[in-house]
Amino acid sequence: MSLSISELATALQLPFQGDGTRRIARVSSWDAADRESLVFIESNEKEALLREPFGAACVLAPKSLVPPGMNGIYSDRPKLDFARAAILVSPRPISTGMRHASAMVATGAEVDPSADLGPNVVIESRARVGKGCILHAGVVVGAGCDIGEGCTLYPRVVLYPGVTLGKRVILHAGSVIGGDGFGYVFDGKEQIKFPQVGTVVIEDDVEIGCNTTIDRGSLGVTRIGTGAKIDNLVQIAHNVEIARGVVIAAQTGISGSSVIEEYAVIGGQVGFGDHTRVQKGVVIGSKAGILPGKIVRSGDVYWGVPVRPLREYKRLNALFGRLPEMKSDIDALKASLARLWKKVDPGES
Amino acid sequence: MSLSISELATALQLPFQGDGTRRIARVSSWDAADRESLVFIESNEKEALLREPFGAACVLAPKSLVPPGMNGIYSDRPKLDFARAAILVSPRPISTGMRHASAMVATGAEVDPSADLGPNVVIESRARVGKGCILHAGVVVGAGCDIGEGCTLYPRVVLYPGVTLGKRVILHAGSVIGGDGFGYVFDGKEQIKFPQVGTVVIEDDVEIGCNTTIDRGSLGVTRIGTGAKIDNLVQIAHNVEIARGVVIAAQTGISGSSVIEEYAVIGGQVGFGDHTRVQKGVVIGSKAGILPGKIVRSGDVYWGVPVRPLREYKRLNALFGRLPEMKSDIDALKASLARLWKKVDPGES
Amino acid sequence: MSLSISELATALQLPFQGDGTRRIARVSSWDAADRESLVFIESNEKEALLREPFGAACVLAPKSLVPPGMNGIYSDRPKLDFARAAILVSPRPISTGMRHASAMVATGAEVDPSADLGPNVVIESRARVGKGCILHAGVVVGAGCDIGEGCTLYPRVVLYPGVTLGKRVILHAGSVIGGDGFGYVFDGKEQIKFPQVGTVVIEDDVEIGCNTTIDRGSLGVTRIGTGAKIDNLVQIAHNVEIARGVVIAAQTGISGSSVIEEYAVIGGQVGFGDHTRVQKGVVIGSKAGILPGKIVRSGDVYWGVPVRPLREYKRLNALFGRLPEMKSDIDALKASLARLWKKVDPGES
Repeated sequence: MSLSISELATALQLPFQGDGTRRIARVSSWDAADRESLVFIESNEKEALLREPFGAACVLAPKSLVPPGMNGIYSDRPKLDFARAAILVSPRPISTGMRHASAMVATGAEVDPSADLGPNVVIESRARVGKGCILHAGVVVGAGCDIGEGCTLYPRVVLYPGVTLGKRVILHAGSVIGGDGFGYVFDGKEQIKFPQVGTVVIEDDVEIGCNTTIDRGSLGVTRIGTGAKIDNLVQIAHNVEIARGVVIAAQTGISGSSVIEEYAVIGGQVGFGDHTRVQKGVVIGSKAGILPGKIVRSGDVYWGVPVRPLREYKRLNALFGRLPEMKSDIDALKASLARLWKKVDPGES
Repeated sequence: MSLSISELATALQLPFQGDGTRRIARVSSWDAADRESLVFIESNEKEALLREPFGAACVLAPKSLVPPGMNGIYSDRPKLDFARAAILVSPRPISTGMRHASAMVATGAEVDPSADLGPNVVIESRARVGKGCILHAGVVVGAGCDIGEGCTLYPRVVLYPGVTLGKRVILHAGSVIGGDGFGYVFDGKEQIKFPQVGTVVIEDDVEIGCNTTIDRGSLGVTRIGTGAKIDNLVQIAHNVEIARGVVIAAQTGISGSSVIEEYAVIGGQVGFGDHTRVQKGVVIGSKAGILPGKIVRSGDVYWGVPVRPLREYKRLNALFGRLPEMKSDIDALKASLARLWKKVDPGES
Repeated sequence: MSLSISELATALQLPFQGDGTRRIARVSSWDAADRESLVFIESNEKEALLREPFGAACVLAPKSLVPPGMNGIYSDRPKLDFARAAILVSPRPISTGMRHASAMVATGAEVDPSADLGPNVVIESRARVGKGCILHAGVVVGAGCDIGEGCTLYPRVVLYPGVTLGKRVILHAGSVIGGDGFGYVFDGKEQIKFPQVGTVVIEDDVEIGCNTTIDRGSLGVTRIGTGAKIDNLVQIAHNVEIARGVVIAAQTGISGSSVIEEYAVIGGQVGFGDHTRVQKGVVIGSKAGILPGKIVRSGDVYWGVPVRPLREYKRLNALFGRLPEMKSDIDALKASLARLWKKVDPGES
């Protein structure tokens, strides 16, 4: 979709300078920019602007950084406004009601006529697919699933039966939602499967990465809150609750019945024991480990295994690196003290 | 499937009180229970029982906890018996011999007439699918695979050629069994692929989680023993042996030629170097790391990177947290000793 | 494919002894060897040769280890030459131009007539599939992808639009190439998606494991260099550059814009923060963690979280294990020093 600079600036509610009629057709990096590209600049990249000639259509930057004579939209948060501009310039694809001949819709399933079903899509009985959804090749929607308006399911996504998606949910390729939770009771001879008959509810505007797995509740619900963003290869176990606006980076694993409260930010490869609780707004660094039952309290950044406040982690880690020095200090103290004892009282120590 | 309380109690070989004719149609959490639900109670949740009115059909609990007048089945291991009850009330689906029109069976493959093949299932040449199997949408069974009776393969499972499954194996969506092991020999210029021509054998009653990957042996066999339970996103490398009854939580990775002996329990995100051995019944905590070649001995719980007995790990971790105190103790000792030297012999230290 | 011993020895440019006309049909472990098997021996497995009778067709081993009268090919690097022999004996399958009836090729896509397309393969518009490629069941090739000659894509591989593969690339089942990178800008209320409109380029002779995910660049390119080998369940984020010959073991995660230089070897479950750089030839042990922005310098092996040179890591880890001793040394020093003060100057300490 192509917009003029003035149209884009108006939509962003930002002032601009230069030729407002110039067309913008894409967002680009500086390297790949062409005459229809919007680029952006953050204050610490000032030098980039000095490159001559300026090949892009327009720069999005703080006013002070835009040289006279250059097309520019002024922004004090250029990365954020560039992201907003990108959504205007390259909006999400709109479904056309395309139904590939190989797509299979079971009797009793309801697919909105506006939704797209790619090749080999399978919609099982009693499932519902909302207005404007796009289901790419090979998606499997289990019996009784309910998919809200405007969702995008990339190739090979699998929804087990009974999963609910809100509006505008994006599930990336290979993600699996609603698999059985991992629960067994040992009877002394074998592992007896604990029932995994709950469900998964994913609320509006959630995005979930490639090959991520989210298990159904054992008896209750696994819930992913509005606007949460989850990266690739993440594991979310049964009965976990992820609240609104939470961000979780790749390969993190969250064990059963844990709760991640609103707007927490979780790094990659973090591991949570079961029944943990991460309070609102907490930030947890990559590779951290949280012991079962632990409450991670608001107001801090956490790091390490087991997790500690970042300041404490840093201090401990610095001391860890000084263990050799501590050890030789101790050895020197022992020697010095022994010599002193000998001097003071040769019979004792 | 609906059973009466007395039928269920008889099947479980447990005594009951109350109305034995009352029907039970499902197992439920307390929150979601309705008049046909069986719920259970563990001793530390006694309070739940006090909620009025009791909405479920029957409670499964220690006799002492069941109030007079309530329908109850007595159990001293209520969680275990609840799991058993769930299997009776909601048994695994039974195949009907359904063969979706889009399922493809290569010439020379043998599929038992009782097995279900969902949409887009692909069975390659010389493969065999046993009695009562259910293969969901998009499952791919490679050439020469042998699938025993009563297996369930969820959507998009891939078996590379030559994989063997025992009876009642459950493979969750997206799991990949029999991919090439990761082995190369560097010739000084490039990585030459070491042959990955072995196979995978999965024994009876194994359950494997979503998007888990199990590689074929390079020259021999990768084996998953009877009744082993493996969670989501686990990686099992070539020539690994997992023995009977082992439990492995999500995102754990086991490197080549390692052996996990019977009934070991492995937490999530654990990493094993190659040629490790975990002895019978060992418990390894989440996020632990086991160095290549290491033997982890029976009779203990292990934790940490590298792995140590839990008691030792706890002591070390506590001391790690006291490093600042140790450091200041050392500094104070140095100062005090220097002062003492000065007093005793001002010329020395 | 069957070769005679003399043909194989000639192809490997190695000398042999014994019956040069004997046929070799496969490479095997010692246990599984039959009369048409090639086996190999490394110096530390000398005993194996003593087993009688020798059931294989031929052994590949250092000359000094091959007993008189046995068929043997001499090699000073038997594991490497065995890998080379395996490629000659079991070459990669050759495509036959097979096009399964259920494979779907969009108008405007170009598939070389020699390429194989398995059941349910989907090739979207403007994609190109080169000579000799083999695409197994259920592979999805997005619009505008470009797949070079001789590539093998195992079942259920997904390429998002615009991905480029070089020659002889192997992608294992379930891998997803070109998913959106994980980038958001928080506007104070919700996470705004940063544009993920770049691409992925995978160069010649790369092999990528099952269920691994490689994200497209946000604005630029994610690149996997010639001959790189990547194991299962690995996560490669947007704009990462993996150089020629790099090896990455399972479950490792590499955050955005990181660079792994030539021939680096990365263990399993390693985590890289964003904007890290690993210099040429570096070896990083499993489970290591690299902080954002960190440069890991050539010439060493690294280990730990955060990563340190192995020698330093080992020393620190040994001292960590001796913390109890250090603590009791400190306590003993305090007591001894207090007693000494008392003796020297009872009024002070």
